[in-house]
Amino acid sequence: MPRNSKINTGIVSKIIGLLLLIEGVFMLSGIPFSLYYGDQDWTFLLGSGAFTMISGLLAYSLNKQADNNGIGKREGYIIVSFSWIAFSVFGALPFWMSGAIPSYTDAFFETMSGFTTTGASILTDIESMPKGLLFWRSMTHWLGGMGIIVLFLAILPLLGIGGMQMFTAEVPGPSPDKLHPRIKETAKRLWVIYVALTLVQTGLLMAGGMPLFDSLCHAFGTMATGGFGTQNDSIAGYSPYIQYVITLFMILAGMNFTLHFLLIKGEWRRVGRNDELRFYLFVMGLSTLIIAAAVYFGHFLGAEEAFRHALFQVVSIVTSTGFVTTDYLLWPTLAWFVLFMLMFTGGSAGSTGGGIKMVRHLILFRNSFLELKRQIHPQAVIPVRLNKKPVSQDIVFNVLAFFLIYMTIFAGGSLIMTFMGLDFSTAMGSVIASLGNIGPGLGSVGPVGNYSAIPDAGKWFLSFLMLLGRLELFTVLILFSRAFWRH
Amino acid sequence: MPRNSKINTGIVSKIIGLLLLIEGVFMLSGIPFSLYYGDQDWTFLLGSGAFTMISGLLAYSLNKQADNNGIGKREGYIIVSFSWIAFSVFGALPFWMSGAIPSYTDAFFETMSGFTTTGASILTDIESMPKGLLFWRSMTHWLGGMGIIVLFLAILPLLGIGGMQMFTAEVPGPSPDKLHPRIKETAKRLWVIYVALTLVQTGLLMAGGMPLFDSLCHAFGTMATGGFGTQNDSIAGYSPYIQYVITLFMILAGMNFTLHFLLIKGEWRRVGRNDELRFYLFVMGLSTLIIAAAVYFGHFLGAEEAFRHALFQVVSIVTSTGFVTTDYLLWPTLAWFVLFMLMFTGGSAGSTGGGIKMVRHLILFRNSFLELKRQIHPQAVIPVRLNKKPVSQDIVFNVLAFFLIYMTIFAGGSLIMTFMGLDFSTAMGSVIASLGNIGPGLGSVGPVGNYSAIPDAGKWFLSFLMLLGRLELFTVLILFSRAFWRH
Repeated sequence: MPRNSKINTGIVSKIIGLLLLIEGVFMLSGIPFSLYYGDQDWTFLLGSGAFTMISGLLAYSLNKQADNNGIGKREGYIIVSFSWIAFSVFGALPFWMSGAIPSYTDAFFETMSGFTTTGASILTDIESMPKGLLFWRSMTHWLGGMGIIVLFLAILPLLGIGGMQMFTAEVPGPSPDKLHPRIKETAKRLWVIYVALTLVQTGLLMAGGMPLFDSLCHAFGTMATGGFGTQNDSIAGYSPYIQYVITLFMILAGMNFTLHFLLIKGEWRRVGRNDELRFYLFVMGLSTLIIAAAVYFGHFLGAEEAFRHALFQVVSIVTSTGFVTTDYLLWPTLAWFVLFMLMFTGGSAGSTGGGIKMVRHLILFRNSFLELKRQIHPQAVIPVRLNKKPVSQDIVFNVLAFFLIYMTIFAGGSLIMTFMGLDFSTAMGSVIASLGNIGPGLGSVGPVGNYSAIPDAGKWFLSFLMLLGRLELFTVLILFSRAFWRH
Repeated sequence: MPRNSKINTGIVSKIIGLLLLIEGVFMLSGIPFSLYYGDQDWTFLLGSGAFTMISGLLAYSLNKQADNNGIGKREGYIIVSFSWIAFSVFGALPFWMSGAIPSYTDAFFETMSGFTTTGASILTDIESMPKGLLFWRSMTHWLGGMGIIVLFLAILPLLGIGGMQMFTAEVPGPSPDKLHPRIKETAKRLWVIYVALTLVQTGLLMAGGMPLFDSLCHAFGTMATGGFGTQNDSIAGYSPYIQYVITLFMILAGMNFTLHFLLIKGEWRRVGRNDELRFYLFVMGLSTLIIAAAVYFGHFLGAEEAFRHALFQVVSIVTSTGFVTTDYLLWPTLAWFVLFMLMFTGGSAGSTGGGIKMVRHLILFRNSFLELKRQIHPQAVIPVRLNKKPVSQDIVFNVLAFFLIYMTIFAGGSLIMTFMGLDFSTAMGSVIASLGNIGPGLGSVGPVGNYSAIPDAGKWFLSFLMLLGRLELFTVLILFSRAFWRH
């Protein structure tokens, strides 16, 4: 890779142009549903799609001569951040142009929330939205989720982009180059798993009586751990069967996709011994038990209901999906305090889930315990182990710094939101729900609330937090450092 | 130091016995005030004092033959934790036996709150307490504060007790052995500074019209960054002059006491260049400006009042003192949210202040920024610098682990408090106010509330958190690790 002091803007524009071309094509995917349901929004999908494709084509052709080998680390960082921004800028057009979301700020917020698989919504009446637009809204989740998996499991580790090599180590067992040495092949395999799981879930939802349109939208929202649905009450109105199906697929979506590949290959044992997976399931199991007990013994719900709702909410928040089946803020404080704390966990690395991620928490926990040991034996070198292999000090350091920056952004972000007039719970809830790509938070942005009442400046700020959280902080923050531009 | 596999319990008992003997003597110090004000509580002070002295003497004489060189690391850890516990167990006797605090749980909570310089109180009517007991209550602060300075600046670094050597590095400029090679000499110098500052403050308070008794109590509470006072409304009823005096001495008490020694020696420049001091003053200055502006422009108070109350509350919380001049929970959310965040800061290392400490935050901030640099230049070794000297990776690691464990205890502790039926704000507020040794928190344990309504189990738990925070986590937590006892 060449080490120029100037950023190669040609290749950046070329690749983002190519990606916009793809986005434009996908924008058209809502048109059949628009026509089927007799809505008028297909014209805006067509118009926006065409405009996005033309813009992408322009950016691509004007930089066609740019050398693909010109992608250095810095270009990589810029492409990643700006592709999410460009997707949201253009992806908001159908909502805005059709007048379904009159404010561009709101439309951008909704779209960024989609592509970052957050699921925070400014819509107060989802069911009144034209079907084509609703489909595009869910599609933003699905594309965003696929983008994240391919990015973190196929592209970044192989490009050796700083900090992301860590995922090679985090992805236990098969390192990406063992899966297959070339990015394209890895991406293709992940893509097949992702599409297959989406189709299976769609089928299972339809088997439960859900129409094709809603089944697809919910499967998109689940597999991307997004949270956009088609109903005003999210998943609350659906049958227990459907709620369990969605729970199962949220768990699958929050797993490292490398593990799905191993499962298909029949390597069950290796999957069963995976530290992150076991920790992920343990955290969800324990939290479900605590909450179900609090809800059941507090005489809020019967046994099955208490278990089902507790499990659903726990899985939804841990995986950062954000679907809800009930207003958990009405539960005993203990129950929703556990949920609030789970907002700081997140899915597995290499999943579509957001947040801090389970493997980081596992490393942090183990390192904390070992620090006590180090106090007693200061001379001994006691490394953190993951899947029985020692984790390098650099990675532990990176994880600790990640956690710290995450908490600082949470604290500073909450402060900024109180500055905009939000109350204590809503400020903290909106920030962690955006940064962790969850969706619903606390207070007036809780499970039955939405983000419509947040001031415009707050919506832009939360959109930024979604991007920050989705791209795991460093990728975005690095663009703000002087050292990056001076190189 | 010998490395026995068994703990040398003899020397542990001997030293704790000696310390109890000293505590018993100090218990008598309230008697003159009791007699002067015509209260009957002097009999209980005398009885408790005698009992404590006899117990101490017994523990000392029965282990007189124990070799002073038998203090290994492990004995050191045990002595530190258990001396605070023993002081609280015996120190609670006057309150309990006199019936002034009928429940032993409450009396223990109040005394642990005193010795850990927390200042959280279960008293609902302070002014009705007999003066001798009130004096002893403030004395627990003063003794606790002195104990902490001597422990962290004179004893632990010189004993080389694990994790505490860090303070040698943190105490910038003069390392303890430059101050004077021997523990006793260092301790004596710190003791002189501490006593002198207390006397100067007492004099300044008396000059403002405060009686000797109240002046002494408030000086004890200030210099120890404790927070126990003599009035039901804390410092709210006093004149601006007195409020400013207390503010100034809270700032002094929250400084590293090594710096006071340098100031006396006339090394102003060196003090002025101290990174932690500058950061400490910067954080307080900036927070005061934000809060004063929010309060002033929110039309809550006039300019001088807004500044004075903002400054007082900021300094009181940052230094972990916990005096209040007004109910900050009535201020705009932004204002008290800043105060809530400041509860996670803490005074300087080597001060009487509690919490995470400024130097740790400084190291964490600098390391986070550098982590971004490390992403761009993965090969470069970029150390964190403090006072222009590189900080060893081990210390940065220790600080990161400290922060993480601190936040885990905060989260887990808040969860336990919600389990006991506390609401969201009160649960989080009581935990951070206890762990950070601050005193007043949020909700019903806020600036005008107290801890009387917390269930008994909660009081014991919060007492434990006070100890944990005061002894900087590791010292206490290590006692719970198997490796410590197996050695």
